[in-house]
Amino acid sequence: MSDAKGIQPRSLDWSSDQLSQALHAASKWTIEYRDGIAELPVLPQVQPGDIRSHLAQKPPSEGEPFEKVLADFDKYIVPGLTHWNHPGFLAYFSSCTRGPSVAAELLIAAVGVNAMLWRTSPAATEVELLAVDWLRQAVNLPEVYSGLIFDTASTSTFTALLAAREHVGADIRENGLTDGPRLMLYTSEQSHSSVEKAAIAAGLGRKSVRKIKVDERFRMRTDALEQAITEDRQKGALPAMVCATVGTTSTGSVDPVNKIGEIARDHGAWLHVDAAYAGSGALLPELASNFAGWESADSIVINPHKWMGTSLDCSVLLYRNSTPFRSSLALTPAYLESEQPNSNLMDIGVPLGRRFRGLKLWVLFRCVGIAGLAESIRNHIEIAEAAAARLDANPRFNLAAPVSFSTVCFRAVGLGDVEAEDRWNRDILSRVNAEGRVFLSHTELEGRYTLRLSVGSVDTESRHVMEALDALERAANDLIPG
Amino acid sequence: MSDAKGIQPRSLDWSSDQLSQALHAASKWTIEYRDGIAELPVLPQVQPGDIRSHLAQKPPSEGEPFEKVLADFDKYIVPGLTHWNHPGFLAYFSSCTRGPSVAAELLIAAVGVNAMLWRTSPAATEVELLAVDWLRQAVNLPEVYSGLIFDTASTSTFTALLAAREHVGADIRENGLTDGPRLMLYTSEQSHSSVEKAAIAAGLGRKSVRKIKVDERFRMRTDALEQAITEDRQKGALPAMVCATVGTTSTGSVDPVNKIGEIARDHGAWLHVDAAYAGSGALLPELASNFAGWESADSIVINPHKWMGTSLDCSVLLYRNSTPFRSSLALTPAYLESEQPNSNLMDIGVPLGRRFRGLKLWVLFRCVGIAGLAESIRNHIEIAEAAAARLDANPRFNLAAPVSFSTVCFRAVGLGDVEAEDRWNRDILSRVNAEGRVFLSHTELEGRYTLRLSVGSVDTESRHVMEALDALERAANDLIPG
Repeated sequence: MSDAKGIQPRSLDWSSDQLSQALHAASKWTIEYRDGIAELPVLPQVQPGDIRSHLAQKPPSEGEPFEKVLADFDKYIVPGLTHWNHPGFLAYFSSCTRGPSVAAELLIAAVGVNAMLWRTSPAATEVELLAVDWLRQAVNLPEVYSGLIFDTASTSTFTALLAAREHVGADIRENGLTDGPRLMLYTSEQSHSSVEKAAIAAGLGRKSVRKIKVDERFRMRTDALEQAITEDRQKGALPAMVCATVGTTSTGSVDPVNKIGEIARDHGAWLHVDAAYAGSGALLPELASNFAGWESADSIVINPHKWMGTSLDCSVLLYRNSTPFRSSLALTPAYLESEQPNSNLMDIGVPLGRRFRGLKLWVLFRCVGIAGLAESIRNHIEIAEAAAARLDANPRFNLAAPVSFSTVCFRAVGLGDVEAEDRWNRDILSRVNAEGRVFLSHTELEGRYTLRLSVGSVDTESRHVMEALDALERAANDLIPG
Repeated sequence: MSDAKGIQPRSLDWSSDQLSQALHAASKWTIEYRDGIAELPVLPQVQPGDIRSHLAQKPPSEGEPFEKVLADFDKYIVPGLTHWNHPGFLAYFSSCTRGPSVAAELLIAAVGVNAMLWRTSPAATEVELLAVDWLRQAVNLPEVYSGLIFDTASTSTFTALLAAREHVGADIRENGLTDGPRLMLYTSEQSHSSVEKAAIAAGLGRKSVRKIKVDERFRMRTDALEQAITEDRQKGALPAMVCATVGTTSTGSVDPVNKIGEIARDHGAWLHVDAAYAGSGALLPELASNFAGWESADSIVINPHKWMGTSLDCSVLLYRNSTPFRSSLALTPAYLESEQPNSNLMDIGVPLGRRFRGLKLWVLFRCVGIAGLAESIRNHIEIAEAAAARLDANPRFNLAAPVSFSTVCFRAVGLGDVEAEDRWNRDILSRVNAEGRVFLSHTELEGRYTLRLSVGSVDTESRHVMEALDALERAANDLIPG
């Protein structure tokens, strides 16, 4: 072994046969899991530490057969999963991993490339760019947009903020924010927490985030936006970014992007549109009015892993101009120099290493087609609207917001006492989720605890949502106070 | 279809049979690809745009069979990949995806969970924590360390900087960096570009990064560090972070972490250790001296995807105390509230959505064992040392740095003219890489173009590296100027 030219023991990795058997076993497990998923409790009834306590606390010294590891996975780990592919998963933004994305992830792992530079895997960079362009075409954005894939909308929005930060011209890359003017970020009080987190991470601080009030339909009030920017500019602050949302997290509301864009441009601010969830809805011509004005944005985030069925992680950041991204972040040390200096996606973002995520988006488009993707989304919206209609017709429940896309906010009502009603709704949700057939989440609207149902899994049918409503109605009756 | 309670068309996703056939086909492809990889050119000879031009520029309206998509993948995309699993891949930090990690990625995609909260997939959070703890045990770090998995070391180091930024007590989360003291980051001129990028992204700016000079073995000079910090403090700046590297990117050099840690502590700065590459080497008892002092770090990054064989992405960030991370970044809007507020990994880092990455590290440990992982790493080091010995014995080549871990820096020498030698070495590398049998990269040391060979793939044997040296010697002879 320490003979310099000696023969090394043949492959320390699995043999072909071992890999073949493992993939066969994992595939078989996958099919059985997905076939039986509807019978599993969607939300496991475990406490923190339960799963870990069933597993060995020390790593093994010697390797074990995959079959044994898979058996332990099935026995100890899977019962502790929350099943995002379960048709009864109606929480957060419900999402799923469609079959083609599962197969694509296998291929991504099989080739195991790192597209940090174009040349460290040309096809991975190019398929990513192509898949992003397919998405652009599918959602009817103009050709000027290009982009790339990040892990999550949080990262996409954060990266857009770094470009916006540079765009205002204070040379933040070189100087940092210290000693410079205060850079401000404007977004509505209904925008996602990742926007505020981006401001913290980028060094602007929470103080630099103005959460603009919303109207009765939870849309950013443009008069309040204009006023906030004007006030801040008078104090010497610079408006760096306005982040509008198409499809807010709580209610799916849609900010008036056209007007917001005008205001942003008037004040020299970057317009970012967070369409992480609803952006996939732009596949449907009948939803086009929701997206009016987004084609003027400097950057847009759409997460195919939210509503199109790619596996997490697949967040697409689109932009009109890559220059502010590159001038913010590009750094090429000698050991990363290449003969294609302008083709490297590492220049646009913090992470250097890049998985071949473009492949799963490309495979999904190929295997499902635009029409197939649109059909699923249309279905989700119809199911959500039917659920909203049933809730609206039931005097025990009120809709808490206009139904937007596939998200429904509602409350059990009629107690007359706000706090008692909040507790009642909380109890209803706990009861329904504990039953394990469906999983819903909650939010807060106008200070009130609000139930929330979101349809986004390809296997979710009307009957699953109707089952959720049955459970909600039962729980509301059973748990009514007094 | 628009009947509210109507029967939805059965599954818009693939049927079980379709998924089963697709996984079978993808598995078969995987085995053939990996069996035949050594015969492929490791680096494709293509130009930017070539791959994309062979693919449809518009997304399909209707879905296509997976077999057709797989055939196109094989025909048009794979020839444009750089094959990171190729035994002749000796560039950058060579790495590979071991069999168990391929199988694990299939399972990760199959369950498709998002561990943003503990409750959105308890087992995913717990297996991640457990796998990180197994790694901690394997590299002999004390129990006080815990941590989590990010995509890349860039993200891990950036996140550590956010904690360090908060740690100095200026309430950056709230105030941002504007109007506050300048926060400084110290690292050696040999540290990875991601450290500087972190400082840009976090809003410190390049101006706040002091690149400390190195000694003749490319290790940070602690006298220069002490002096730089003292100077900056006299100017009113705050030392926020000192980043030491165990295994620098160019040469694998090891900073004197013990002494650096003392200096950092004396000045109230956070000590971060970048052991992204070499950290896996701590599995070998004989390498322990390289890691002296890292057990005093506030945070450490180790990338199992670099030298242990998990697929990208698997970067482990370890820390002594999670509080500065949480107090920097945790934000819990109403829609993410849960009954386990202290168990959520979303609180530590920018990305909200989290893939089930812990599974691949856990599966790798289970299937290979600590002893198996150590054996691979030991092999890589022996192969690298043998290559260095052969280069050292050849008057045509000089080693350009002490050999550290599995990385060898060298140059063809003897022309007497520095610029001509740089061109010659560049030409040698181009020639060798164009042949397609091996792939090496380069760096710059003391202003000189330097060839670089790194061994890190489980299938790389002595003979592959000897073949690289044959090619280098041939090219050096053929291309000698004049």
